[in-house]
Amino acid sequence: MTVQIAGVASTPFGKHPDSSTRELFTDAALDALEDASLPVHDIEELYAGNFIGDVTDDQAHVGAMLADYLGARQAASMRTESACASASSAARSGAQAIEAGDADVALVGGVEMMSASGIGEVTDALANAADNEYENEAGLTFPGIYALMAQMYMNAFDVTQEDLAAVAVKNYENGVSNPLAQRQEETDIESVLESPPIATPLNLQDCCPITDGASAAVLVSKAYADDHGLETTVEFAGSGQSSDSLALQDRPDLARTRAAERAAEDAYERAGIGPNDIDVVELHDCFTIAEILAIESLGFFERGEGSRGALEGETAVDGRIPVNTSGGLLAKGHPVGATGVAQLVEITKQLEGRHPNQVDDPTVGLTHTVGGSGASCVVNVLRTGGA
Amino acid sequence: MTVQIAGVASTPFGKHPDSSTRELFTDAALDALEDASLPVHDIEELYAGNFIGDVTDDQAHVGAMLADYLGARQAASMRTESACASASSAARSGAQAIEAGDADVALVGGVEMMSASGIGEVTDALANAADNEYENEAGLTFPGIYALMAQMYMNAFDVTQEDLAAVAVKNYENGVSNPLAQRQEETDIESVLESPPIATPLNLQDCCPITDGASAAVLVSKAYADDHGLETTVEFAGSGQSSDSLALQDRPDLARTRAAERAAEDAYERAGIGPNDIDVVELHDCFTIAEILAIESLGFFERGEGSRGALEGETAVDGRIPVNTSGGLLAKGHPVGATGVAQLVEITKQLEGRHPNQVDDPTVGLTHTVGGSGASCVVNVLRTGGA
Repeated sequence: MTVQIAGVASTPFGKHPDSSTRELFTDAALDALEDASLPVHDIEELYAGNFIGDVTDDQAHVGAMLADYLGARQAASMRTESACASASSAARSGAQAIEAGDADVALVGGVEMMSASGIGEVTDALANAADNEYENEAGLTFPGIYALMAQMYMNAFDVTQEDLAAVAVKNYENGVSNPLAQRQEETDIESVLESPPIATPLNLQDCCPITDGASAAVLVSKAYADDHGLETTVEFAGSGQSSDSLALQDRPDLARTRAAERAAEDAYERAGIGPNDIDVVELHDCFTIAEILAIESLGFFERGEGSRGALEGETAVDGRIPVNTSGGLLAKGHPVGATGVAQLVEITKQLEGRHPNQVDDPTVGLTHTVGGSGASCVVNVLRTGGA
Repeated sequence: MTVQIAGVASTPFGKHPDSSTRELFTDAALDALEDASLPVHDIEELYAGNFIGDVTDDQAHVGAMLADYLGARQAASMRTESACASASSAARSGAQAIEAGDADVALVGGVEMMSASGIGEVTDALANAADNEYENEAGLTFPGIYALMAQMYMNAFDVTQEDLAAVAVKNYENGVSNPLAQRQEETDIESVLESPPIATPLNLQDCCPITDGASAAVLVSKAYADDHGLETTVEFAGSGQSSDSLALQDRPDLARTRAAERAAEDAYERAGIGPNDIDVVELHDCFTIAEILAIESLGFFERGEGSRGALEGETAVDGRIPVNTSGGLLAKGHPVGATGVAQLVEITKQLEGRHPNQVDDPTVGLTHTVGGSGASCVVNVLRTGGA
């Protein structure tokens, strides 16, 4: 791969009632361009994730809208949509455009405005990521879907609600040190268990919040970085993306995410590494159970062993494999169309040694982003190595 | 470019009340795979355009849904969305994935189911391609937007409703010979002028119909074609995509589509050709005025001269620059998320010498697809040249 990360930025995650989709994205994009020391008129490709704006804002065609408002009308602009993995698809497509020789500069990112809509409207819109014919119309929404996956996992591996809660405790603690995180308070096992039940076995603190936010990254070719004297230190080392059945009912095992396994295998192969080479991870903990499934799919833990990660400190900032040092979706927040690039922002900062929860001298990092209940998964690998 | 077109297919366009989004797309995809003599399990990337399904069917995450139903769960799947240019973005992204060396086989396509929704719901959903804050909330929908563009053009260049109608007459005539076209009847200037007014100066026959349809194309690397003995004869020669203001109000001239001009310039440069090298064209005639604007943006006619194309037979099947030999969006139909690849299917058939309105021995063809009122435009160039 010859694609370099020249600059990254996220807005604060949380509620932005006085902003709009285009304003919030532009805030992140301009910050990323400043971080890259790169002018807006050099952008040749703009890939933006956005998931529920069609429904909540009656606004599609978001790629063009964002290019327009940013002042990058010269760019090829496109919205990428893989449900909650939309922004990771944007990053992957931007890297491919550069690798293909079609562009030297790609702005990739995503944005979602969720808090202005009622919780019912947001839950309905998010359910568009599931199988409408077979799941939504039967009454399933995402907390229910992940609750089914959690029940299957807990039954199969003798895991308890306390074990799930340990994931929230770790990620909330990480969020406290992240100034951009939506939730900036610690919790403990008892508080998670006593938070209101959402869909048994998941309580409120097992679930990520509703979030407004935007993230952006500037990807450049090595040639562009060299020609413009950019001091890049992180490269896009490889990517994998795969699919699975849209509906849960068609999977042989609900306690396993096959798209993630395939995406990880592919990303590792392209980057020429294995799971043991990874120093820091941002992954898709939309619910506590999701982090446990993810660290197994990515090869960091054996099947059925994932709950050990948070319980035994292995996924802590100073653990064997630090996971979600940003606070993850649970604490940092989950503006769905932005999340994949938000993860990429965090990993870039880790590899550049400027993260608020800095891991000791990492050289390889990974993002893992899931669409729906796992019908899509994107794994992107970043590595130190500059222009 | 080393990307080859291995197979193409479209479903009949029109009304498919007994089908669903996933079924219709799979019909096109399986036909394209058969045309390519290629098994579904070889698909590594699946890019699908879909525009209004979030609103009309409460179904997003369509890339994964289509990969799933087709039996291609191994593929990286993604929905691309650039409003009505969504499928052309899919084709461009599929080609980039191959060029980047990330895949040898990409299935690109699109699908839209429109007829089951009421005309009001469809019109509202399509309006999501415009600027919701500045256009839709003021009452503008797409017939009104293109009517404004038509009025500006007619005033600037002394063009009449009769001149616009000539585009419909040509494209309806072409549709009669296309067995997949939605409208299979000729019209004449008088009938266009007497059809019900939609948004002055556009009458019903100046407007494309509401369409259900799907299209798919199998793109392969030259190495894959060689290794598998595929007798491909058409290559993806170059692509351009650009943006413009989302809202009409921010453009200096409503009678001009700048994104199309930039996309064409870029595509010509990448393919190493100019407008005089093009032998056959499928372009975005969502309204009659749109074809006139397009043939000027693409460099086939001087500014203000585009109405000569249909009036003087220059864009006829046997004319100087044959445009929309399929019947175009006006007669073939316009399932918005599928249109860009539907155009690619038609051009491929022309270059392979198997089109129902065959042009004499073409070697270079072009597709032009517009998102919204021109905030996105994709131009893809195909050329004879096999593996």
